[in-house]
Amino acid sequence: MKEIGKSLIGFIRKDPKQKEFRKSIEQIIGSKPTNDLLYQLAFRHTSASKQTSFNGFKESNERLEFLGDAVLGMVIAEYLFKKYPFKDEGFLTEIRSRIVNRESLNQVARRIGLDNLVEFDGQRNFHRTSMFGDAMEALIGAIYLDKGFAFARKFIISKLLTNHYDLNEVISNNTNYKSTILSWAQADGRKVEFLIVEEKGKNHSKEFIAQVLVDSEVISTGSGWNKKKAEQDASRRACEALKI
Amino acid sequence: MKEIGKSLIGFIRKDPKQKEFRKSIEQIIGSKPTNDLLYQLAFRHTSASKQTSFNGFKESNERLEFLGDAVLGMVIAEYLFKKYPFKDEGFLTEIRSRIVNRESLNQVARRIGLDNLVEFDGQRNFHRTSMFGDAMEALIGAIYLDKGFAFARKFIISKLLTNHYDLNEVISNNTNYKSTILSWAQADGRKVEFLIVEEKGKNHSKEFIAQVLVDSEVISTGSGWNKKKAEQDASRRACEALKI
Repeated sequence: MKEIGKSLIGFIRKDPKQKEFRKSIEQIIGSKPTNDLLYQLAFRHTSASKQTSFNGFKESNERLEFLGDAVLGMVIAEYLFKKYPFKDEGFLTEIRSRIVNRESLNQVARRIGLDNLVEFDGQRNFHRTSMFGDAMEALIGAIYLDKGFAFARKFIISKLLTNHYDLNEVISNNTNYKSTILSWAQADGRKVEFLIVEEKGKNHSKEFIAQVLVDSEVISTGSGWNKKKAEQDASRRACEALKI
Repeated sequence: MKEIGKSLIGFIRKDPKQKEFRKSIEQIIGSKPTNDLLYQLAFRHTSASKQTSFNGFKESNERLEFLGDAVLGMVIAEYLFKKYPFKDEGFLTEIRSRIVNRESLNQVARRIGLDNLVEFDGQRNFHRTSMFGDAMEALIGAIYLDKGFAFARKFIISKLLTNHYDLNEVISNNTNYKSTILSWAQADGRKVEFLIVEEKGKNHSKEFIAQVLVDSEVISTGSGWNKKKAEQDASRRACEALKI
């Protein structure tokens, strides 16, 4: 196995396309990749995944995305924990979820140029998917495996968070998804309902589950640490689902 | 501020109760705590939280729990990622959630003796809460801040995961919560319904949202990467809510 691995890497290094790829990664992460294959995998969307010959396992970036999502969540958690020593965990949870939500990650991924690197089946319509944000999470997973925790943390904080987020804006950003839906419904002659369908936990650990119904059909479910947040979360998902 | 901090630590070190506390922590984590205050905070349930005098912020272990939850999630993600190189992200997500679920964490917390350390308002009934599991997450947050990532990771893997979980059992554990509810309903003369209320995403990133209704009332909402998992998740939550 080692022999095959080495000759494969040797082969890849000579390929000019591969040289260009290495250079792109170096520009994005600020260091030469050690294990190119990790980064290649990070940019392989499931629509372009290949069956590995020896065990039939289909390799795509989804496993790396799982890992990178966890690394990103942790690094942001620590960053916010230290930056806001007098804010409670509800605030920290909310701000983190705004930072790592699908739209934000997709946007940042495009801004750092990941959209040029993702390999996918171009026949299909990936408009409005989370493909680039997912690739960014997978890239974080690859960086963590290739360069270790300290490097991955520094990448997240200095290359993503401080370069592409304005935290004050994130905190004050109150896009009112509920009113967005209400306007849409009025214009379109639909009946919209917002329901709190469940309350979980007690006191400080309370969680609310809200649903948005359009013409009595459940469109989305969301959660939050108060009723308003749960409704906003459900409304945001409804906006996505309804492509409003 | 530094002066106050130092003299406070000096004062605490002389207190025999505090000595005992330090010893307990040392036994649990396998190293002398550097910053005692972090560990004290980790065991302060919100019911016993004190208002800090200088800014009115109520200090409890909830912020540390937020941080520790993220550290735990990441370490388990990496562990599973490496241990199961040919399992997909759905499997990894599912197994991780079984490891870090409320019941498992509570159980492990008791087994390592955290129930003797948690400070809470004993007047209230905390039966069936996640108090001990939450304290364990807060402890992980404290360890991370006190000793760094490598130490926290080692603690999670060697003191918690390999000592208190049988991964093969976790993987094969298919407690059928749906049939548990059905039996309960039949014995109690209730009508139970399991509904898939939403489907999110496409292909590999699909997520289903299920609900359990008892006598037409929504009892719980759950999610999963297929309909069966979503129903199981909703059923597990219903079992909790109904105290079955």
